[in-house]
Amino acid sequence: MSDNQILLSHGSGGKQTNSLISDLFLKYFNNSIISEMNDAAQLTLEGNKIAFTTDSFVVNPIFFNGGNIGKLAVCGTVNDIAVSGAKPLFLSSAFIIEEGFEKDKLEEIVKAMAEEAEKAGIKIVAGDTKVVEKGSADGIFINTTGIGTIRDNVNIKACNAMPGDVVIVNGTLGDHGITIMCERNGLGFDGDIKSDCASLNGLIESMLEVCPSIHVLRDATRGGVAAVLNEIAEASNVSIRLREKSIPVKNEILGVCEFLGLDPLYIANEGKLCVFVPEEYADEVLEIMKKHPLGTDSSIIGKVVESGNSKVYIDTVVGGQRIVDMPSGQQLPRIC
Amino acid sequence: MSDNQILLSHGSGGKQTNSLISDLFLKYFNNSIISEMNDAAQLTLEGNKIAFTTDSFVVNPIFFNGGNIGKLAVCGTVNDIAVSGAKPLFLSSAFIIEEGFEKDKLEEIVKAMAEEAEKAGIKIVAGDTKVVEKGSADGIFINTTGIGTIRDNVNIKACNAMPGDVVIVNGTLGDHGITIMCERNGLGFDGDIKSDCASLNGLIESMLEVCPSIHVLRDATRGGVAAVLNEIAEASNVSIRLREKSIPVKNEILGVCEFLGLDPLYIANEGKLCVFVPEEYADEVLEIMKKHPLGTDSSIIGKVVESGNSKVYIDTVVGGQRIVDMPSGQQLPRIC
Repeated sequence: MSDNQILLSHGSGGKQTNSLISDLFLKYFNNSIISEMNDAAQLTLEGNKIAFTTDSFVVNPIFFNGGNIGKLAVCGTVNDIAVSGAKPLFLSSAFIIEEGFEKDKLEEIVKAMAEEAEKAGIKIVAGDTKVVEKGSADGIFINTTGIGTIRDNVNIKACNAMPGDVVIVNGTLGDHGITIMCERNGLGFDGDIKSDCASLNGLIESMLEVCPSIHVLRDATRGGVAAVLNEIAEASNVSIRLREKSIPVKNEILGVCEFLGLDPLYIANEGKLCVFVPEEYADEVLEIMKKHPLGTDSSIIGKVVESGNSKVYIDTVVGGQRIVDMPSGQQLPRIC
Repeated sequence: MSDNQILLSHGSGGKQTNSLISDLFLKYFNNSIISEMNDAAQLTLEGNKIAFTTDSFVVNPIFFNGGNIGKLAVCGTVNDIAVSGAKPLFLSSAFIIEEGFEKDKLEEIVKAMAEEAEKAGIKIVAGDTKVVEKGSADGIFINTTGIGTIRDNVNIKACNAMPGDVVIVNGTLGDHGITIMCERNGLGFDGDIKSDCASLNGLIESMLEVCPSIHVLRDATRGGVAAVLNEIAEASNVSIRLREKSIPVKNEILGVCEFLGLDPLYIANEGKLCVFVPEEYADEVLEIMKKHPLGTDSSIIGKVVESGNSKVYIDTVVGGQRIVDMPSGQQLPRIC
């Protein structure tokens, strides 16, 4: 591949994605809103603060243990709005379908979208359908774009992490990515390997009730927790220190990761978020998270420290320390 | 193809698209907003009326005389918002790119989007990039989703056409579709065959200034003016009578249509709209349209008549009358 070609890594959520965004998209789409680079754009519309976000879903396989592309398309955009501190309200859904795709599969996907929208309390209000010739797409791609209203009393942004903040995740890492990887490669492993695909707006709402002063919230999708934490460290100009032994990973997932030589910190999740809260709220937020069905395995995984260099460090279980770098190169393509 | 398969015609904007929408999407995504089936969903957000619309663009070829997929993606969504009587403000853009796609082509597309956004006075504020393996998509697909604010004093909906209304178009029909068709099939014809791809919000704004009581506005894209007028006739429970001799079509386009056995009424446009205005405003609206660079060839093409059957009729140049039916089957795929 020449330098002039788009690579799979440009869509993996790591370094190459970020350089494509900054070198190309931000070069031309240059305005104060997009350049903030939040999960959802924060707009002001007739005096109201609105969150607005878009995501296309190209996951392969289309159906997987724990969900399908439709459920994922709703959860993903709901989560991008919710982590901006907004209440998700409306969703559009646009389908690009390959000629010959089975109608009953489409129905199963659309049904899953409707069910997840109902569960998340949002309405799908606009749609579009395009069909392309056989061979011009791989089954089905779905774009969802969402609108939410930003709560008045919150100020959640990637650049708000402060030294002293405690970093919490709402459960085990790597479930979605490893599920997709196993299904795609026909790997059979024992145990419960299932995507964590879920809408997190309810959990986030309960967290914001006890702590409106949450500094940062990010869902850890492409590039995993490693990508998210590096982005936050950079945006906030802080460093983050993790404790490996506090990072929740299911035994089955850890087994697959060890077998394949992967680090769960770099694996995509679809129902997990990283929360940065002032230390004095940490116990209270952790407690409310653990009470929620989507947060029973919540854990404090690290804290924000003073920085000269915006790095993420990890204290390993064997007593060492290493840098958790921004993922680079091709992660697993088409994870979402 | 079995009954259980999605066909190209399901994406062509005609009968099959409509039945897919009503039998599948509306069955599951059932709420009062989406079931209104407007070009843009009309939402109420904190007391403000918002227009919200989504469109995926899969046009082939990606670059064509008069534009490219990027320009089209901005114009298309700007127009869907503008024809709902709203002022387009914000756009998201989501890219699905085939591995190996040339970066400089991507740059040309992104640049065209930025230029068109500037021209239309909207901001591109959110984005997403996915890359799929070579062979899993055809070059590049772009989704744009837009937000606008609905003007207080307008009430523009497909169901508002009234007997006596005059139907105006803002210029020659079929330019976009015939351009794409010629380029895709390597057909060389003399003359100026060029897409009409343009953002119509400025033209619409000037029309609304002289006539806030415009009843219906629709951009005539997939399925052409024939599809749009049939949808309006159905939604408003009226019939529409067209005069063939008043329908503006460029000689070059008419030539290609005659050569290929096509009817310009069924060909997609990307810078043309149908306007329904009360008769007493018709002259004034036509005059203001003709003064706008995107409306110099505006023409009154027909009127709304009392109805028992929601049909579109045309009085032909040779003195006959025929029904202009809803397009059915496969029109030209991937026209937008």
